[in-house]
Amino acid sequence: MMKKLIAGLFLLFSAYATYAASPEIYPVNWWTGMKTNKLQLLLKNNDADFSKGQLAINYPGVNLLAVHTFENGKYLAADIEITAAAQPGNVDFIYTKNGKKSHISWQLKARKGTPGKDFAQGVSAADMIYFLMPDRFSNGDTTNDRVKGMRDQSLNRADYYARHGGDFKGIIQHLDYLDQLGVTALWMTPVMENDMPSRTEHGYAITNHYKIDARYGGNNGYKELSDALHHKGMKLVQDAVYNHTGTWHFIVQDLPSKDWLNQWPTFTGTSAREQALFDPHASAIDKKLMTDGWFVKEMPDWNQRNPYVASFIIQNAIWYVEEFGVDAIRVDTYMYNDLQFGNDCNAALLQEYPQISIFGEVLVQNTPNQVYFVKNNINTAFKSNLPGLLDFQCLFNGIVPALTQELGWNTGVIQLYNVLSYDYLYQDPTKNVLLLDNHDLNRFFSIVKEDVAKQKIAYTWLLTCRGIPQLYYGSEVLMKGETKPDGLVRLDFPGGWKEDTRSAFTGKGMTAAETEVQALVKKLGTYRKNSDALKFGKLMQFAPRDGVYVYFRYTDHQTVMCVMNTAKEARTIDLTHFNERTEGFSAANNIITGTAIKLNGSIDIPAMQEMVFELSK
Amino acid sequence: MMKKLIAGLFLLFSAYATYAASPEIYPVNWWTGMKTNKLQLLLKNNDADFSKGQLAINYPGVNLLAVHTFENGKYLAADIEITAAAQPGNVDFIYTKNGKKSHISWQLKARKGTPGKDFAQGVSAADMIYFLMPDRFSNGDTTNDRVKGMRDQSLNRADYYARHGGDFKGIIQHLDYLDQLGVTALWMTPVMENDMPSRTEHGYAITNHYKIDARYGGNNGYKELSDALHHKGMKLVQDAVYNHTGTWHFIVQDLPSKDWLNQWPTFTGTSAREQALFDPHASAIDKKLMTDGWFVKEMPDWNQRNPYVASFIIQNAIWYVEEFGVDAIRVDTYMYNDLQFGNDCNAALLQEYPQISIFGEVLVQNTPNQVYFVKNNINTAFKSNLPGLLDFQCLFNGIVPALTQELGWNTGVIQLYNVLSYDYLYQDPTKNVLLLDNHDLNRFFSIVKEDVAKQKIAYTWLLTCRGIPQLYYGSEVLMKGETKPDGLVRLDFPGGWKEDTRSAFTGKGMTAAETEVQALVKKLGTYRKNSDALKFGKLMQFAPRDGVYVYFRYTDHQTVMCVMNTAKEARTIDLTHFNERTEGFSAANNIITGTAIKLNGSIDIPAMQEMVFELSK
Repeated sequence: MMKKLIAGLFLLFSAYATYAASPEIYPVNWWTGMKTNKLQLLLKNNDADFSKGQLAINYPGVNLLAVHTFENGKYLAADIEITAAAQPGNVDFIYTKNGKKSHISWQLKARKGTPGKDFAQGVSAADMIYFLMPDRFSNGDTTNDRVKGMRDQSLNRADYYARHGGDFKGIIQHLDYLDQLGVTALWMTPVMENDMPSRTEHGYAITNHYKIDARYGGNNGYKELSDALHHKGMKLVQDAVYNHTGTWHFIVQDLPSKDWLNQWPTFTGTSAREQALFDPHASAIDKKLMTDGWFVKEMPDWNQRNPYVASFIIQNAIWYVEEFGVDAIRVDTYMYNDLQFGNDCNAALLQEYPQISIFGEVLVQNTPNQVYFVKNNINTAFKSNLPGLLDFQCLFNGIVPALTQELGWNTGVIQLYNVLSYDYLYQDPTKNVLLLDNHDLNRFFSIVKEDVAKQKIAYTWLLTCRGIPQLYYGSEVLMKGETKPDGLVRLDFPGGWKEDTRSAFTGKGMTAAETEVQALVKKLGTYRKNSDALKFGKLMQFAPRDGVYVYFRYTDHQTVMCVMNTAKEARTIDLTHFNERTEGFSAANNIITGTAIKLNGSIDIPAMQEMVFELSK
Repeated sequence: MMKKLIAGLFLLFSAYATYAASPEIYPVNWWTGMKTNKLQLLLKNNDADFSKGQLAINYPGVNLLAVHTFENGKYLAADIEITAAAQPGNVDFIYTKNGKKSHISWQLKARKGTPGKDFAQGVSAADMIYFLMPDRFSNGDTTNDRVKGMRDQSLNRADYYARHGGDFKGIIQHLDYLDQLGVTALWMTPVMENDMPSRTEHGYAITNHYKIDARYGGNNGYKELSDALHHKGMKLVQDAVYNHTGTWHFIVQDLPSKDWLNQWPTFTGTSAREQALFDPHASAIDKKLMTDGWFVKEMPDWNQRNPYVASFIIQNAIWYVEEFGVDAIRVDTYMYNDLQFGNDCNAALLQEYPQISIFGEVLVQNTPNQVYFVKNNINTAFKSNLPGLLDFQCLFNGIVPALTQELGWNTGVIQLYNVLSYDYLYQDPTKNVLLLDNHDLNRFFSIVKEDVAKQKIAYTWLLTCRGIPQLYYGSEVLMKGETKPDGLVRLDFPGGWKEDTRSAFTGKGMTAAETEVQALVKKLGTYRKNSDALKFGKLMQFAPRDGVYVYFRYTDHQTVMCVMNTAKEARTIDLTHFNERTEGFSAANNIITGTAIKLNGSIDIPAMQEMVFELSK
């Protein structure tokens, strides 16, 4: 690419005629007073020779540093600097071509809130995240169910891959419900425009990084949701998709340069073999297939080693945090990104928003495969700076085997104990997000073969273990389903549509078991909100014996004792074994039942049950 | 314990009468010119007031630094220093009690050989270890089958827990066989005296650290074996048992102090939950149960935090290396030892013998559980200095699933690829010892349900992967058996007894399949001996596709390509995928068949087979 240095702020010659340039500019706006004050704006005009013109800026405190062109003449990239002297207003870009000039206006806004306080607060183990698919939770505004001009016009609740009509309004109407569960943060599948012809329910095929999908309520609707959440003391987690985009993205449809995407002679999917990234014995082709292979045909893979692409994505991430008041970021398909790009993006976000939290999706089978991609205690040539991740190991190799495997020397609940012992590999495992299920996995209630007792243990564990608990919408009322196909784990939340005959919000038509599990989550979720031990406390776990797993969460001021019996028989545990944590306490208050017992001798625990006690002197 | 400082070399007063002191002294001798020149001698005399006497040394260059007493008056510990001035000879200890004195003679020998050259050479990936149980390999001397005065008089080949009569002479008679297999190092289950009443076949219940079991040939027999091995260019690996000892050990029978053993109110076995040692959430009781619990009732657990015990064990380890010409040490039940003791012992051995190699037994289920106990790339408060270990993960989570699981996205041979990718956690995985089976595990031929094709793949992998290959006696001729009970995997090697009707040494009575697998091991073992790529080369592995796993071993001068097809169908692999390693080569010589193929386009590989090619230009 050719570089055109611009000597000064002013046009080099006077122009009498005008030229009708009205390029799109990305980011669509910026703010004064940001640490991120050097930007690379991408300009696109519908003129194949747009790049042949000259660009200048006439705005106090905003300097044009460089202009770059691409293979495609419709694009320009402008490196600008927004100095401390710049005031909010409309920056005047002056574009000149063939002696004709035009003015392009680009907004510089004043910042609205204080990051770390009003937004970009981060989520921690003191939070509880509710994860939902906005198309599938609640339909609060039927007027946006179908949006004219968009490619997917499939609205049909009977088809699990069609649009169902859920939106931000529906969520706003039910924030009280989330609050009752103890939820303090909302994470949705991506809400950016997915103007794809089909399968738009998941949101991971973004077609415009600066538009929130109109079917959810658009940019204004997203701001309303963000405000409503913050008003309720809740936080907003944004699902970030850096690795790929939708085929119908405006950039993909008209690439600045071929090398904006990872190009292959014919379609080449990612190998999904993350091992090549850390394996000291890996081949170059396996590394390339993993990182540069496409996730699916409909989602072209960004070439993040192209610095223009990297700037485009990173600036967008900062933009939406500031624009919508995002508090935390969940990064989709983290290990498929160029890892250095991932580090750069995380660093840029953390530089602007030191309190924001970032957790990645690293969907792998074992801890050594997972821990490489997050801040860890391992000396490797490449060091990830990702602060946290979705802890699939505590699921796959922890609570799932604990509740589904026959008890044996190395099977059953010992697996849960074992996987937590691997915390020695993490820099800070309390930043990991714990989950039972999500939109890509079997619903937990199906995993445990619809065993209510097991589902209750799972939620009890989720809300008492170390890390940040994440609920997946509806599993708290025993929604079930397996990922054959994945549409079956993305069904509608009962009561989210006014025509629904059952409602998990009101209890109408719900079974006793559904209400029971929901009540358990409410009880523990509410308790958790006020429990320093569960929010900030250390974990101490004891090696399980006879299927009974005992662990404690504790601070200097509060001790919570959890007794999980995964055996098919009732058990009696000898309390002397746990002296290290029970010494000095004389009673235990059962958080779930509200009954208190004396702490002496032993505790009886029924088969397949978990008890949570707060200890007292 | 009281310390008695001795001011000088000479007796403080003359003594006219004599006292009949003839204590045992451990180590039973030492050498001049050792780096380890400060010793703590343990003296035991059959006099309950032995400790009330005074000790002095009258020998040039040998100084007595301190004397320590114990609860048990029969013992004294003498800290001595052997200076550079000391010459070989009999050191004169003068013991005085109640005015009576006696002379005790203790030998200081001249060193025989050069460590790192004549012995203490270490084993590396250039070696191939043969592991056998000396009672079960070959009976070369029937006169030592039963030894008068020893507790176990069970000689009976029909009983797999009785003595069978195997010995060093039997092994010496068959070193040619080992040589033909490509073996360069011999490791036996422990050979120290096990004067226990029963179950003495395994050797892990040591009753005297300075006596080699008479039933194998005693101290002289062990020296003969060591000399014979070295004469053939082979090395001797000693099985070291630091964690526990036999109930009938003379020290256990008459403890210097109670705290020489890890004492419990009633018998308490180890929890065998190694997680507590690295788990940041571990309880103190779980750590204690793991380390201080006894391995089994018949094997009391040394308290290695007692510095007298630590000295006793560490000095013994150096002693047998020097005395018998040991080249490498395999440490039994490594993770059950006090880990700081383990580090101290390794450091002491490596200080004396910089080239010796040490590998530990860490019998656990997953890499994070294993890697903590060896030199690794993980920042932890405790850092193990153990150089290598028996790589059970490459077995349990590698070659076993590769050959026994149905092929799936995460099952089958992908597991083998995956477990090797975890090498990023090790400081030097080439120091790991690879195995298919041992005396505690099912024979591999039984694991693969007596599938000869699979057994052949397993050996091919074992001899071509990174690390030090270890054979378990007899598996190369398809010995089978599962550990229910473990006696079934400890049966006699065919042909080791003159009455045997079948002989794996001569081929007499062996089946075609047995001979075929044995021939494969000989072929690859012999090739390996002269292959720099297999001995020292790097490993490059490619993610398996359709059940086919391709990996290379290579140096600048030699490239070996291994193609393992674990599918039930024949496969054709496209060679362009492997360009990174095949570029510049035009032909591939099949090491097993001796036939050469052109390296262009593709390679056909039959179902369930591994091919090994040396590439040429």
